[in-house]
Amino acid sequence: MSEAAQTLEGWYALHDFRSIDWAAWKAAAESERAQALDELQSLLQVWSREEADKNGSTAFYSIVGQKADYVLMFLRETLEDLNAIETAFNKTSFAAFTKPAHSYVSVVELSNYMAKPGSDPLDNPDIVARLKPTMPKANHICFYPMNKRREGNDNWYMLSMDERKAMMRSHGMIGRSYAGKVKQIITGSVGFDNWEWGVTLFADDALQFKKLVYEMRFDEVSARYGEFGEFYVGNLLDGGKFAELLRV
Amino acid sequence: MSEAAQTLEGWYALHDFRSIDWAAWKAAAESERAQALDELQSLLQVWSREEADKNGSTAFYSIVGQKADYVLMFLRETLEDLNAIETAFNKTSFAAFTKPAHSYVSVVELSNYMAKPGSDPLDNPDIVARLKPTMPKANHICFYPMNKRREGNDNWYMLSMDERKAMMRSHGMIGRSYAGKVKQIITGSVGFDNWEWGVTLFADDALQFKKLVYEMRFDEVSARYGEFGEFYVGNLLDGGKFAELLRV
Amino acid sequence: MSEAAQTLEGWYALHDFRSIDWAAWKAAAESERAQALDELQSLLQVWSREEADKNGSTAFYSIVGQKADYVLMFLRETLEDLNAIETAFNKTSFAAFTKPAHSYVSVVELSNYMAKPGSDPLDNPDIVARLKPTMPKANHICFYPMNKRREGNDNWYMLSMDERKAMMRSHGMIGRSYAGKVKQIITGSVGFDNWEWGVTLFADDALQFKKLVYEMRFDEVSARYGEFGEFYVGNLLDGGKFAELLRV
Amino acid sequence: MSEAAQTLEGWYALHDFRSIDWAAWKAAAESERAQALDELQSLLQVWSREEADKNGSTAFYSIVGQKADYVLMFLRETLEDLNAIETAFNKTSFAAFTKPAHSYVSVVELSNYMAKPGSDPLDNPDIVARLKPTMPKANHICFYPMNKRREGNDNWYMLSMDERKAMMRSHGMIGRSYAGKVKQIITGSVGFDNWEWGVTLFADDALQFKKLVYEMRFDEVSARYGEFGEFYVGNLLDGGKFAELLRV
Amino acid sequence: MSEAAQTLEGWYALHDFRSIDWAAWKAAAESERAQALDELQSLLQVWSREEADKNGSTAFYSIVGQKADYVLMFLRETLEDLNAIETAFNKTSFAAFTKPAHSYVSVVELSNYMAKPGSDPLDNPDIVARLKPTMPKANHICFYPMNKRREGNDNWYMLSMDERKAMMRSHGMIGRSYAGKVKQIITGSVGFDNWEWGVTLFADDALQFKKLVYEMRFDEVSARYGEFGEFYVGNLLDGGKFAELLRV
Repeated sequence: MSEAAQTLEGWYALHDFRSIDWAAWKAAAESERAQALDELQSLLQVWSREEADKNGSTAFYSIVGQKADYVLMFLRETLEDLNAIETAFNKTSFAAFTKPAHSYVSVVELSNYMAKPGSDPLDNPDIVARLKPTMPKANHICFYPMNKRREGNDNWYMLSMDERKAMMRSHGMIGRSYAGKVKQIITGSVGFDNWEWGVTLFADDALQFKKLVYEMRFDEVSARYGEFGEFYVGNLLDGGKFAELLRV
Repeated sequence: MSEAAQTLEGWYALHDFRSIDWAAWKAAAESERAQALDELQSLLQVWSREEADKNGSTAFYSIVGQKADYVLMFLRETLEDLNAIETAFNKTSFAAFTKPAHSYVSVVELSNYMAKPGSDPLDNPDIVARLKPTMPKANHICFYPMNKRREGNDNWYMLSMDERKAMMRSHGMIGRSYAGKVKQIITGSVGFDNWEWGVTLFADDALQFKKLVYEMRFDEVSARYGEFGEFYVGNLLDGGKFAELLRV
Repeated sequence: MSEAAQTLEGWYALHDFRSIDWAAWKAAAESERAQALDELQSLLQVWSREEADKNGSTAFYSIVGQKADYVLMFLRETLEDLNAIETAFNKTSFAAFTKPAHSYVSVVELSNYMAKPGSDPLDNPDIVARLKPTMPKANHICFYPMNKRREGNDNWYMLSMDERKAMMRSHGMIGRSYAGKVKQIITGSVGFDNWEWGVTLFADDALQFKKLVYEMRFDEVSARYGEFGEFYVGNLLDGGKFAELLRV
Repeated sequence: MSEAAQTLEGWYALHDFRSIDWAAWKAAAESERAQALDELQSLLQVWSREEADKNGSTAFYSIVGQKADYVLMFLRETLEDLNAIETAFNKTSFAAFTKPAHSYVSVVELSNYMAKPGSDPLDNPDIVARLKPTMPKANHICFYPMNKRREGNDNWYMLSMDERKAMMRSHGMIGRSYAGKVKQIITGSVGFDNWEWGVTLFADDALQFKKLVYEMRFDEVSARYGEFGEFYVGNLLDGGKFAELLRV
Repeated sequence: MSEAAQTLEGWYALHDFRSIDWAAWKAAAESERAQALDELQSLLQVWSREEADKNGSTAFYSIVGQKADYVLMFLRETLEDLNAIETAFNKTSFAAFTKPAHSYVSVVELSNYMAKPGSDPLDNPDIVARLKPTMPKANHICFYPMNKRREGNDNWYMLSMDERKAMMRSHGMIGRSYAGKVKQIITGSVGFDNWEWGVTLFADDALQFKKLVYEMRFDEVSARYGEFGEFYVGNLLDGGKFAELLRV
């Protein structure tokens, strides 16, 4: 049985990080700003309805620091859906007050390294729900991409499946010990973007991101085989908070 | 017999990734936009005729995420042809509404590591067709560049040809198992661009990109010797879809 | 007992490096410049009161060289506080005369690798004061981010806790030998930003930065396991000095 | 006898890659464009006379892809000559329609690893001609920079001179097998630019670049010790072709 | 005796690389250009007097290639002095015609690995003169930053002091063999900028840079332990030459 067959995929994901062009925003007429916010709020409502209808899910967070001002993370059925969202956003008058900062394309993924022989994960409604999740309105988000290392003696892809399964089991146990504190969505991006996975964490207490990621770093899977990209951390937004943030 | 002699080259390839300058596009007069689209459509028709005449092939896809808004991939007989296409595009009024995002220069390549002794691949019309292919109108495209690694004990270029042939045979078998699901065009870029090869995949189901690339990663050729650049993924466009995408 | 449990966290930190847009500044009317400085001074006063009230601490330094013109380093109770400071700054008319240069998000951290068994560091008011420190008005600041290496035989995260403790003890002894000369604030950024730690040093004599960092580099912790990012060095500012610096 | 003494240097080289600012070019008045082209043609004539007078040589090629639109490669007697060319170009009205894309500073170099003992290469008029070459008007150019690796067991600079000589001899034999198909100019850039050497290749058939560089990659000198930078490939230009390319 | 105690520091150094904004320069009125040059000349005179008064030293060189148009290298007593120079420059009207290209912050350093036991280098007026040097008006400058490597078996900071001393002695002998041909100023940047050292070379014959750096590369200190950043090379300027260069 091939490796690829052991992984289940759900909704496609687009993380869309953007910065506000404050100079343009402040230079705009009050009416232009109102119009821009109206168009953004309309999209937020569309996305909210799609979430209510279980046709997707959308997370909206400010980002701390200069890497970006906010992220919109979209989960949708197809890559065409994600492209359509990008196009709809670009057509709003609000878009002209933003600058692209970073993006990431991936797909929600459940790896069943730990599945019991004979079971079909797709029979499990919990697993289906995890493949097409409604993202929580937690206070904080954390996003980072990662690879499994392939260097000299530390080559994940040259290990046997048993070795990988054993290490992933220990790794998963750390994750489970944060249940109720950190919700994680793993998205696969092999073939879609520059790293192999994206990790999106949600928590009400941002310190739990640090504790979880740091504790995992001593786990052999991360210590020897984990390569990590840029980390983004932010605070929950909604249309009202964002309008307040932009009030000048 | 030298290594170089074992590789066959066909059409030159230019991947031309660009982003739309939405602010300029929306600021333009309706007539300017119409004129710009007309000029682009004229080029698309020229390229379409060239494809019909077997003088080249052109693929047109949107790109998901902020890396680019679309890619035009051109296969043509010479580097001069590719340069002429760039110049023709730059002279259109549409070009002023785009920004360069990324490009890649390479040449369609068939490696015959697996050729039987005594056979001349050029006698094979299928191989000639693969050197000068008409690209499919699949729903999705995936592009990434790659190198064979030369690091410490993982040095592809220090292996014997027999070792390389054996590994490439296993690698090719994975690729063949995706026949009908993923069409791949391998282009060589040694001497032309920053990586040794470009890989362009076409599929109606984008998940097949992930499954194929992930499965191959466990193959020794990729696990120990593959180095990968940035990945781009997108959705099929044509003149009509693109005009719709740009309607403001 | 897990690794994560051995670390204490205090205030969140934002290093906000910015450059002056001198062309815009000089092109502005005298009254615009006065207004911009007034708005900045108002923020500086707010931040000063917060420091007096022990609700945070703010450091303000020019940066030498082209990487940035100045850094504002903020210590506050929450990530939301840091975001609010960013937003307040962006809304000033002064912000339009600056360009983002770099930022870093982290949290003040005390690692108790060297804690005596049975002691609870949080019973110690000195430790609490170190978790929520008022930054000194030293003549100079030095900032750099760092990782612990995970490469081949030099993999910090594969060492036993005893090995790490012994090395950190020796490392800490070098730091202590600079007591009175260099004040250091270690901030953890796992899960928050691109490196694992930020190191912020304060000294009246900038040469002590060089001597301390260089001496530590021969220590096994740094020599074998330290990876360092970009270094920033600067000179103490305050509202008056900054207004003088900007007088044109 | 030291290593440095075994290398002969000739003319200094500047590769000056630039892109056309098409938006500005098309926005300019016809008379401005004519004036700009006139000024460029005047410089091209000056450079042509210098080549005729054996005071230097100049190559002019378009570049395929988005890295640049064209390269001007200058060989001159001194670094001051190269700086003067840059300044003269910057003073033309044509320069305002270009954007810098990349540059490389080096000096034509002949390494005599393979020289017979007792011979002085400077007695050889062929060698003098190779140190101050007139570049061919071949259809295509290829440029890339390279280093000799110094990593772990693959450290070129820790090899004995005999080992290096033996490997370079084999390497040179591959190069010679392309005589008549590829002309190569090796320039040294230790102390001048970011890599140790620049390699500029000229060929009427661009595929020969790929074949040569690929074949060499299996040679131990490249396989174990070669590190390569960005590759640029292009097509022959002259004043007339360039004016045609720019006609709008 | 600690490592840090074996190094002597003198003047702080700022390398300030900038490019000319030729479009703005040519678009400016003749009177604006004259005013801008006047203000620059005034600063050059101030810096010249400081050099005459032994309060610092300033080098002024054009840079060949696109990395920058010129570098001003400043040696001064304090980091505040360097910041004040930056501010004074930014306030000139000339500054608006330049764009920052690169900078480096360091401090003149004499390492006494080779000092005889019992001697105090500070008793030596030659050494004091080397710590606060007046830079020569040589025809050419070369600048590059470097680190000592800490990778696997090639870890400089894990060597014993005796091993390091022996290697530095051999390294220094190569440097001394270029006495009269190349003047070198070593500046330490640990704690100040991104690399551990800056190397600034001055020579009347630029080829000597190449010969020196290349010869040293075979020395074990460089071959196994040297890591090098970007190289800049340039030609001597003064106020008159620069005004000539800028005459349009």
